[in-house]
Amino acid sequence: MRFLTFGDRDAARRPGFLERDRIFPLNCDGLESFIALTSSERDALLDAARGAESLARDGVTLRAPVVPRKNVFCVGRNYLEHAKEGAKALGRELKLPDVPTFFTKAPTAIADPEATLRFAHRVARQLDWEGELAVVIGRRLRDADEASAAVAVFGYTCLNDISARDLQRAHLQWFKGKSLDASCPIGPWIVTPDEIGDARALSLETRVNGVVKQHASTASMIFSIPRIIAELSAGMTLEPGDVIATGTPEGVGFARTPPEFFADGDVVEVEIGKIGVLRNTITIS
Amino acid sequence: MRFLTFGDRDAARRPGFLERDRIFPLNCDGLESFIALTSSERDALLDAARGAESLARDGVTLRAPVVPRKNVFCVGRNYLEHAKEGAKALGRELKLPDVPTFFTKAPTAIADPEATLRFAHRVARQLDWEGELAVVIGRRLRDADEASAAVAVFGYTCLNDISARDLQRAHLQWFKGKSLDASCPIGPWIVTPDEIGDARALSLETRVNGVVKQHASTASMIFSIPRIIAELSAGMTLEPGDVIATGTPEGVGFARTPPEFFADGDVVEVEIGKIGVLRNTITIS
Repeated sequence: MRFLTFGDRDAARRPGFLERDRIFPLNCDGLESFIALTSSERDALLDAARGAESLARDGVTLRAPVVPRKNVFCVGRNYLEHAKEGAKALGRELKLPDVPTFFTKAPTAIADPEATLRFAHRVARQLDWEGELAVVIGRRLRDADEASAAVAVFGYTCLNDISARDLQRAHLQWFKGKSLDASCPIGPWIVTPDEIGDARALSLETRVNGVVKQHASTASMIFSIPRIIAELSAGMTLEPGDVIATGTPEGVGFARTPPEFFADGDVVEVEIGKIGVLRNTITIS
Repeated sequence: MRFLTFGDRDAARRPGFLERDRIFPLNCDGLESFIALTSSERDALLDAARGAESLARDGVTLRAPVVPRKNVFCVGRNYLEHAKEGAKALGRELKLPDVPTFFTKAPTAIADPEATLRFAHRVARQLDWEGELAVVIGRRLRDADEASAAVAVFGYTCLNDISARDLQRAHLQWFKGKSLDASCPIGPWIVTPDEIGDARALSLETRVNGVVKQHASTASMIFSIPRIIAELSAGMTLEPGDVIATGTPEGVGFARTPPEFFADGDVVEVEIGKIGVLRNTITIS
């Protein structure tokens, strides 16, 4: 299934799901609440929605499918070729950790699909793309093994982990350069695991103004999604609605020769097989 | 004023304030909601509370005064002597950034004053203390200058940024080692700026089983609180109820010779002048 959130940008966010180009609204106060329900409670809401009025998808404004309460969890350097290009660009020796590197993005950074993302040159000069497969957690878990972690996934979506490289370096830890307002567009919808099948067999492509910048398969991930979730959950409770960005492949701007960064007016797309396209316009003032 | 949250650990959290050893309950659904109100709305609730029944402070269980929705913002290396001891312990040259280093702790790490904090040896072997002055933000702000940042403070409290040094190092970025469940006790209450006066003239002491481990003045902070808030708010919206931990002084365990870490049964206290004592017992199984 494809779960989404819709509604005009100045109006309330409404949860729903997409079937045969129709949107079926869900009678609950947000997809975040829906995800926290038991599966029988979810089924009751799905049945009710299928029996009620639906909307044509065309003309409906999509919003970020979920806005997590807490920060988005992110995995750094989860594709070998990206780890290599980063080390090379910074003139450092490549040292791969034997556990994932985690950092976060503030939830105030979440932005809608199709939204114009507004940044200020005064704050950051080196805005870069990072197309990523994001996982939405469907149940509370802690100290999970990989098998329990795998079944805790509610679904998958596209995420652009827009990164201010100048801030990331100046502040040493990555958080500040990763958390500017509008630096975390997600969507267009959340696709459930039954439709995704093997999450390590998805194509992932990032385009800027139509030019392919990143093109990889999720098969190249260093740490699998169950491993990432299990590692995060060691001694730390994960909750329904938590979002985990699983890392970006090679082809980011700062590691290119010469380095490339977003310019005012750029259109950036993150496309993931079996999910769809997350498209945003960048404005830099 | 001193704002707090109280209620048995298995019961609802109730907001209130403390005056002359009496607790005055506030008629709203949490201190988080109270902080988000306008000052006239807050005043109306305070007046109502003063006219209603109060409770004796003795015998009341204090809870974390606020549980932020998003991650706790933290400042790394904000005391020169702590930056020096850390560099020495890791055999690195001391390089101080000219902007603050920010990282976060998951909100699931928040723990109550007086609570027993439970950790597992299997997950982390090097649990360390970091006594800190925490700031609670009282209003939404972005791109603030230091003057606006200073007046955005709702109040101050004690925070223990308990850090798993082995995880912090293994995962490269600090987030995972900083975010174990129960690794962020805060309290006992939030003291408003009018009672604190100069936030750079507070004593800060961390004791383990009564032995002083950290003793410093907030005068030694490298980056002032208005500077920290202003830097965080550059391009990133801060919201009422956000918590910022402003860094720890020298005397942490990992930098001692030989290194010291928490042991099962330890009692740790963070005491800050004009605020009070945050006391917790550590259990490690």
